Amino acid sequence: MSEPFELTATKALELINTKKLSREEWVESCLKRIKARENKIKAFSFIDFENSIERAKKFDLTNKKYSGIPFAAKDIIDIEGMPTQMGTTFYKDNIPKRDAGSIAIAKHYGCIPIGKTVTTELGHRHPGPTVNPHNFEHTPGGSSSGSAAAVADLMVPIAFGTQTTGSVIRPAAYCGVIGYKPTYGDFDKSGILPNSPSNDTLGLMARSIDDISLMRSILIEEPVDLDEKCNLTNIKFVFLKSPHWEKMEEDSKELLENFFRSLKNNKINITEIDLNELITQSSEIHTRLSGYEFKRSISAERFHHFSELSEILRNGRLSDGDNMTLKDYHQLMDELNKFKLTFENKLSKFDCIITPSALGEALKGLEFTGSAQLNTTWTLLGYPAITLPLFTGKNNMPIGCQFVTKKTKDDLLLSISKKILKDFF
Amino acid sequence: MSEPFELTATKALELINTKKLSREEWVESCLKRIKARENKIKAFSFIDFENSIERAKKFDLTNKKYSGIPFAAKDIIDIEGMPTQMGTTFYKDNIPKRDAGSIAIAKHYGCIPIGKTVTTELGHRHPGPTVNPHNFEHTPGGSSSGSAAAVADLMVPIAFGTQTTGSVIRPAAYCGVIGYKPTYGDFDKSGILPNSPSNDTLGLMARSIDDISLMRSILIEEPVDLDEKCNLTNIKFVFLKSPHWEKMEEDSKELLENFFRSLKNNKINITEIDLNELITQSSEIHTRLSGYEFKRSISAERFHHFSELSEILRNGRLSDGDNMTLKDYHQLMDELNKFKLTFENKLSKFDCIITPSALGEALKGLEFTGSAQLNTTWTLLGYPAITLPLFTGKNNMPIGCQFVTKKTKDDLLLSISKKILKDFF
Repeated sequence: MSEPFELTATKALELINTKKLSREEWVESCLKRIKARENKIKAFSFIDFENSIERAKKFDLTNKKYSGIPFAAKDIIDIEGMPTQMGTTFYKDNIPKRDAGSIAIAKHYGCIPIGKTVTTELGHRHPGPTVNPHNFEHTPGGSSSGSAAAVADLMVPIAFGTQTTGSVIRPAAYCGVIGYKPTYGDFDKSGILPNSPSNDTLGLMARSIDDISLMRSILIEEPVDLDEKCNLTNIKFVFLKSPHWEKMEEDSKELLENFFRSLKNNKINITEIDLNELITQSSEIHTRLSGYEFKRSISAERFHHFSELSEILRNGRLSDGDNMTLKDYHQLMDELNKFKLTFENKLSKFDCIITPSALGEALKGLEFTGSAQLNTTWTLLGYPAITLPLFTGKNNMPIGCQFVTKKTKDDLLLSISKKILKDFF
Repeated sequence: MSEPFELTATKALELINTKKLSREEWVESCLKRIKARENKIKAFSFIDFENSIERAKKFDLTNKKYSGIPFAAKDIIDIEGMPTQMGTTFYKDNIPKRDAGSIAIAKHYGCIPIGKTVTTELGHRHPGPTVNPHNFEHTPGGSSSGSAAAVADLMVPIAFGTQTTGSVIRPAAYCGVIGYKPTYGDFDKSGILPNSPSNDTLGLMARSIDDISLMRSILIEEPVDLDEKCNLTNIKFVFLKSPHWEKMEEDSKELLENFFRSLKNNKINITEIDLNELITQSSEIHTRLSGYEFKRSISAERFHHFSELSEILRNGRLSDGDNMTLKDYHQLMDELNKFKLTFENKLSKFDCIITPSALGEALKGLEFTGSAQLNTTWTLLGYPAITLPLFTGKNNMPIGCQFVTKKTKDDLLLSISKKILKDFF
């Protein structure tokens, strides 16, 4: 048998239900893995060894209905009793008394918060210390850096991240795990630092679609309708190279094109279309919208801690917001509403988009967490998106492929993802 | 000269600019008023005497550009160093390390947070101890109970409230102050307890339109374009009795109808129209939408403090949310988008709605904070709304009149309000 830390949550729960594993063993194994690897990976900003084990023991003894799933959460998400430092130096003693809504829900259904994972500064660009588990000299991506690395390095089966631009999909793709951003609004955001509230989405990292489904089901407090028999030949796929295709690494392009051909050869209904103009428009809207909203959301730090912020935040994102008036913002919101309708019309004949998750493998160096250009559109539209770790690139690093369905079609997205993994990899 | 605590902020600032008043005197006077009255009014959950005076002194000495406006904020809005208790018993030691975004902005422009005002439990119905300053046996309204009472009782010139249904307009109307809910999204909400994020709006209470304008200008960090010469005869008004008209107190109906006639007699272009069907539909959408979102936002309390919550919350609002699935919620959001377009079309020929703020004077007794039925529609639509303390009812209590303009037309709303107060009262 594998070590418990290697298991997906769904697999571990099967063993727990058949008495082949206890919750305590599971959590202890994850903590052992963290102890062994954390000094290299640096995925965590805080680890709660003691309470995690205590909770697992208690669930084993008295609360058999509780799952005991160990999980971690990006450090802009409040967990009662653990510091929320948000990738800054000045919130060391910021210890919330209240769980974020989605943390409270997860705890209620027996999930055990192991700790807080490293985020870039306030969820923006300035990186934390986390490295990519596949090559320590490469970035794990951001802003949900620690969540992606912790799941990739088998420290926890599931981690929470958030996405305002590409902060779930990109790090998940770079670290070779599944990253899932649900339909905008599906998961509660109370107790999570806002960046751009019109875009901010709580998402998940895991190593199996079943785990993503399970966790989605917990967070929405409803069953997820995963179609195990999902017939891919009935799905109308569209292949979108996006206007960023030319900037992509050659190996990534080749792998994606091969995948596209292999789908075609297997009688999958897939068409390549060009929405470059709309995608470019979406980036422009997103940059301005998120710049304006970010500047406001980060007012406490902008005014009380300005000199302690990174230069990239002070001179980048925060100054973006300065170029806009409230009237511009109102006009932009109108433009966004029209854009959403136009985009929806263009896609009316299709069910699922296949498009790159990132420009290539994770970049060398920890300074730049990579470009989110390939994720912006889906965040802005509020469409559910998932990255699947389908390929390996020239440097032996993982390369993800992004699948996107229309708003509220999360069950379809997860069903397709599961079938793709089963039939093609 | 009046006591400084009696002054509006704009008036006090005039005196400060002409050296007839110091910030210290102003803040001290407000604190003296609070000390004298708080044991009766019970508007505050926390008062920061020491720091308020210190800040005022400091601004007088070294930071002449800072206004020094004393203000208070509803106790679901975080102010660094002051407990955020949210009208519950279990958050006594919940002392945030981070200001809400809008608090940070206000502080940056020199506003001085005097304290936290009483809210109903978690911003819902279960009342706090605050009484109506006009008659201590009557409710101040809710959920921004303390904010309305503190401004009405001359304890602070300005207070922050929030509105998810009618929680700014109703208490302001009951307490005889101006209550202003801006266009949805205009003021930042970071650091404010979410109730129903699609509806939640930070709003203001004050005793003059100039004060509301000044504070809006601070919070949006831009000038407000108040048209002092606003020609009311160029405005297309509509008088909406609403489907709740029959439930209203007779004196309120009479006062509003007299006002309607007096506007007509003064050559104001005002038409009575019936949108009862749409308004009823808006209430239905709002109840379901806010029920579903509230249940999620309040997950930390729902799961960790259920037995400590009031019965009205446990069996009322929280169980509302249980009757809906995520799919229902998605459908409701679609319905809402269509509803917004329909409503906008119906109003395309009009600039400003005049409609009751509440069913009548503040009710006797502190248990029930009153009905929000007359406010729901404007919250759901995200339209800016203001209540002006235009009338006095049969029990010698204030009666407000609500003015509403279309989304983003806040400057017009404030200009109209100022002119109405000047020309008709």
